[in-house]
Amino acid sequence: MPEISVRGLEIPESPIRKLAPLAVAAKGRGIKVYHLNIGQPDLPTPQVGLDALKNINRTVLEYSPSQGYQSYREKLISYYKKYNIDVKADDIIVTAGGSEAVFFALMACLNPGDEIIIPEPGYANYKAFALLAGATIRTITTTIEEGFALPKVEKFEELINEHTKGILICNPNNPTGYLYSRSEMEQIRDLVKKYDLYLFSDEVYREYIYTDAPYTSACHLEGIENNVVLIDSVSKRYSECGVRIGALITKNEELRATVLKFCQARLSPPLLGQIVAEASLDAPEAYFRSVYDEYVERRKCLIDGLNSIPGVYSPMPMGAFYTVARLPVDDCEKFCRWCLNEFSYEGETVMMAPASGFYTTPGAGYNQVRIAYVLKKEDLERALTILRKALEEYPGRVDEK
Amino acid sequence: MPEISVRGLEIPESPIRKLAPLAVAAKGRGIKVYHLNIGQPDLPTPQVGLDALKNINRTVLEYSPSQGYQSYREKLISYYKKYNIDVKADDIIVTAGGSEAVFFALMACLNPGDEIIIPEPGYANYKAFALLAGATIRTITTTIEEGFALPKVEKFEELINEHTKGILICNPNNPTGYLYSRSEMEQIRDLVKKYDLYLFSDEVYREYIYTDAPYTSACHLEGIENNVVLIDSVSKRYSECGVRIGALITKNEELRATVLKFCQARLSPPLLGQIVAEASLDAPEAYFRSVYDEYVERRKCLIDGLNSIPGVYSPMPMGAFYTVARLPVDDCEKFCRWCLNEFSYEGETVMMAPASGFYTTPGAGYNQVRIAYVLKKEDLERALTILRKALEEYPGRVDEK
Repeated sequence: MPEISVRGLEIPESPIRKLAPLAVAAKGRGIKVYHLNIGQPDLPTPQVGLDALKNINRTVLEYSPSQGYQSYREKLISYYKKYNIDVKADDIIVTAGGSEAVFFALMACLNPGDEIIIPEPGYANYKAFALLAGATIRTITTTIEEGFALPKVEKFEELINEHTKGILICNPNNPTGYLYSRSEMEQIRDLVKKYDLYLFSDEVYREYIYTDAPYTSACHLEGIENNVVLIDSVSKRYSECGVRIGALITKNEELRATVLKFCQARLSPPLLGQIVAEASLDAPEAYFRSVYDEYVERRKCLIDGLNSIPGVYSPMPMGAFYTVARLPVDDCEKFCRWCLNEFSYEGETVMMAPASGFYTTPGAGYNQVRIAYVLKKEDLERALTILRKALEEYPGRVDEK
Repeated sequence: MPEISVRGLEIPESPIRKLAPLAVAAKGRGIKVYHLNIGQPDLPTPQVGLDALKNINRTVLEYSPSQGYQSYREKLISYYKKYNIDVKADDIIVTAGGSEAVFFALMACLNPGDEIIIPEPGYANYKAFALLAGATIRTITTTIEEGFALPKVEKFEELINEHTKGILICNPNNPTGYLYSRSEMEQIRDLVKKYDLYLFSDEVYREYIYTDAPYTSACHLEGIENNVVLIDSVSKRYSECGVRIGALITKNEELRATVLKFCQARLSPPLLGQIVAEASLDAPEAYFRSVYDEYVERRKCLIDGLNSIPGVYSPMPMGAFYTVARLPVDDCEKFCRWCLNEFSYEGETVMMAPASGFYTTPGAGYNQVRIAYVLKKEDLERALTILRKALEEYPGRVDEK
């Protein structure tokens, strides 16, 4: 049997999805599983998006242009304008989810051996895509004790050397919910400018910011227009993760021409998803308000609930719909597996994502989990009760002294 | 401005799509363009597939499993059984088009520096994906004079060395329409077995075989079950290229586990496309018969028409819906550009794909084009008239002595 490639062996399993077979098995035993592991909102897709599907009158579901439909890219201009982001249709390349945008960005910008700085904990799949590009991740550690704030700019600068090619941030952050301040963003801008780096900025959660602090997009930063690559997706904005529509946006023409070649190789982004995404841009303000209000309530419910469980701590996330919480256990991966394999409370259990998969530093985050608050309040409350019971029963419980 | 990656600079533009901006410009000048460049059939998607879209009653368009829906994968079993291909649902991983299947296969199997043998002319995007994997393509040349038949097995063997990791074939072939005989397939099998290579077999055109010769799938070959990776797609089968649904199929468990990690990194294949593809499996026999009969007619119309133009030669393709034709010109890339930029006949012109992009050997195929017969007969006839006129007028005409 021929060998698997080295990258194939090294690419990590998704910490969000790798326990899925255990959840399937638990369900097979008749146990109800509350999914706190994955950012799959239960909130509805906008009706205008669903209606657009019903109204498709094509007889051929044909390829779309490699860079995405012109009509969709033009309509996105006014969406971004609302956030004070000034783009032209030509700046936008439509991708198969934000995932493909990250992947194309890293493949187009990074050579094997290049280094990219990514704060940790960070979205787990960045690691996978950096590995596919052959690049090395250098980590800026943020800590739960400091609410996952960015460390001082000097810490970044210590990591920069002749191999450093870019910085990747996620803002608001998945998994921590942290929102970068204007001043933090300007520090990053200064570094990017000084060392002529790429700044990859994943901003797919901009709709979900719960503080009064302003949202500073990488596209708001002056003087680094050709360095910035914005990663975007409609998945979370419209609760339509399944349509697989994202975008890579940059003012850098040479980079766009390169990315377009990758786009041509995979032919085109999903046609049906583009139709839904384009229609969803017409979702009424009331849709966003109700979704937003719902997340505000859920956030309070989850964070208050977590912090009321003995030994559990979660900072208050400022954005997105995740939190990273510390649990009083020996090892959260073991604990998460145990919850699915061995535990149930009144026929129910919880599935969470072990946070270690979001860290690059070995051993970091071993006693943390990422929890998504994408379930309705009653379910979150029930899940919190189950988590409390699980922590009481778990044989590997470790209380801090 | 930071630099583009080397792979980004090296990845070729798609020969099928790179002239698209010229076509857009021609259309902007009011010229009608007949698209012979791209395998986008004008035939309808099965009604059952279109109906499934209208009947979607979900309120949330959510992620699907990373490997694709269980129900779809199970339903595929009987589809493959019709072709005497014996697979289980677990052997099938659903991908975003056949493109993603090729990409994941090469990334999972090939290390930088590994070599893969691909007959030329071959589907252009294989080159792009091999380059992304860092692998080197070694070419087996097939010629228009020999109807693009595979050369003797010794020719393959000459290329095999310690870096050789696999062979990639497309059967029936894009762009040549060639169908590998049972004996050719068995020769490949013997090589794969002898040197323990991967055999990547792209068989997305199996519905379109126009000779009495039997279709031999790589999955029919005995003794190399763990070496075979079948690449598939619903794009051409159901004229639904836009839904972006393909599959990677292998009995090799270790390889599947690796590919699943890539699948997790991109989260999931398109949800809506899977719904359409699953429903399309119920398309009635009459659908396939009428589509098949249509291609038989178009093939005859195109190939007879081409060979009646002075100086033009096309072999008779045995399958798929392309042919590679030789034109009496100095350089087909120049000629194709000229057709879009400078020529029109009664306000119309043709777009073709220069075949050089399907060859790896520099200079090869310079006087050949790939033509897809995916337009209706009247349009094909009209396109042939235009091509004849274009060849009469083209200043770079070169007639063989």
